[in-house]
Amino acid sequence: MQYPLPIARLIDSFMKLPGIGEKTATRLAFYAMDMPKEDVDEFAQALVDVKEKLRQCSVCGNITEQDPCAICSNPVRDRSTIMVVEEAKDVMAFENMGEYDGLYHVLHGVLSPMDGIGPEQINIKSLIVRLQKNDAAKEVILALNSTPEGESTAMYISRLIKPAGLKVTRLAAGLAVGSDIEYANLITLKRAVQGRTEL
Amino acid sequence: MQYPLPIARLIDSFMKLPGIGEKTATRLAFYAMDMPKEDVDEFAQALVDVKEKLRQCSVCGNITEQDPCAICSNPVRDRSTIMVVEEAKDVMAFENMGEYDGLYHVLHGVLSPMDGIGPEQINIKSLIVRLQKNDAAKEVILALNSTPEGESTAMYISRLIKPAGLKVTRLAAGLAVGSDIEYANLITLKRAVQGRTEL
Repeated sequence: MQYPLPIARLIDSFMKLPGIGEKTATRLAFYAMDMPKEDVDEFAQALVDVKEKLRQCSVCGNITEQDPCAICSNPVRDRSTIMVVEEAKDVMAFENMGEYDGLYHVLHGVLSPMDGIGPEQINIKSLIVRLQKNDAAKEVILALNSTPEGESTAMYISRLIKPAGLKVTRLAAGLAVGSDIEYANLITLKRAVQGRTEL
Repeated sequence: MQYPLPIARLIDSFMKLPGIGEKTATRLAFYAMDMPKEDVDEFAQALVDVKEKLRQCSVCGNITEQDPCAICSNPVRDRSTIMVVEEAKDVMAFENMGEYDGLYHVLHGVLSPMDGIGPEQINIKSLIVRLQKNDAAKEVILALNSTPEGESTAMYISRLIKPAGLKVTRLAAGLAVGSDIEYANLITLKRAVQGRTEL
């Protein structure tokens, strides 16, 4: 005997999410069945809305309800700095930090030739166009993850835009605050020593 | 800065599921945003359907699209045996086993006075009514989990229905097949010895 069709379908849907296997999906589906109807309807509506109401900002690629996004259209933000990040989630992380008031550019990925992701597949072209149009930009901060793909994407972008006379920087690498030197990996330690600062 | 409203709502919805905290909910919400539109729409529809199309069978309490459910309305099933289980998921487990062809009764919970769950809160009354109406029933199998609540619920039901002359049984307790005696808990070992069978 199979599960009744509606619950089998819900299990299938949960299984499409990352890190959720059949057992967890089944548990979640049965749990959802016992949730208050309003909660389930809200959940369904939120899923539809997230696809329908959100789009990418035509300027920076950030996820937004309005276009251009709240950051690009904010006249108070410092237009001389553009921080290049991999994902919209990274924008949120820096905004929550609260000390950066420049603009962003979201790549929606990193170069990864092994996975068939070249410069055309991510948001690099729009960055170049944007820098050519925008005289105000003076510094580009490459805030990409320090994975091999992130590093090589940073190198690639740096080579493209440096000739235009822009200042190109990347985030400091070193020991995470609160971490143990004992457990830091070799490359992190090397970067921490190379980038040491005077007290 | 907060997440755009649609994604914040979706994160909230994911967080209502068991075992999903804020970080996981955020990851799932962003993942859902990047899923194909058809998959997201199917997911939303499955959530709505699971609330709207499924109901409890008026005879046995199992989750079903039609009432009475496929098991209760199947003329081939053995009507002399009723297996009492805690949840609809348990029905699926026994059906997948494939060797039981009697009927079921789903309690949708167990007695738990500490949590305010008494006989009125679970599906016990309908079991009594059903047994009074149905002359065919000869055996009731109490297939409840061997938790303190499951055991006391089994005791409670047994005392209610035994006087009517029904055979009341419970599942064998003992060592799980493939498990190690070394790691079995004391109560399981005790039950395994008490319930030993002749070869």
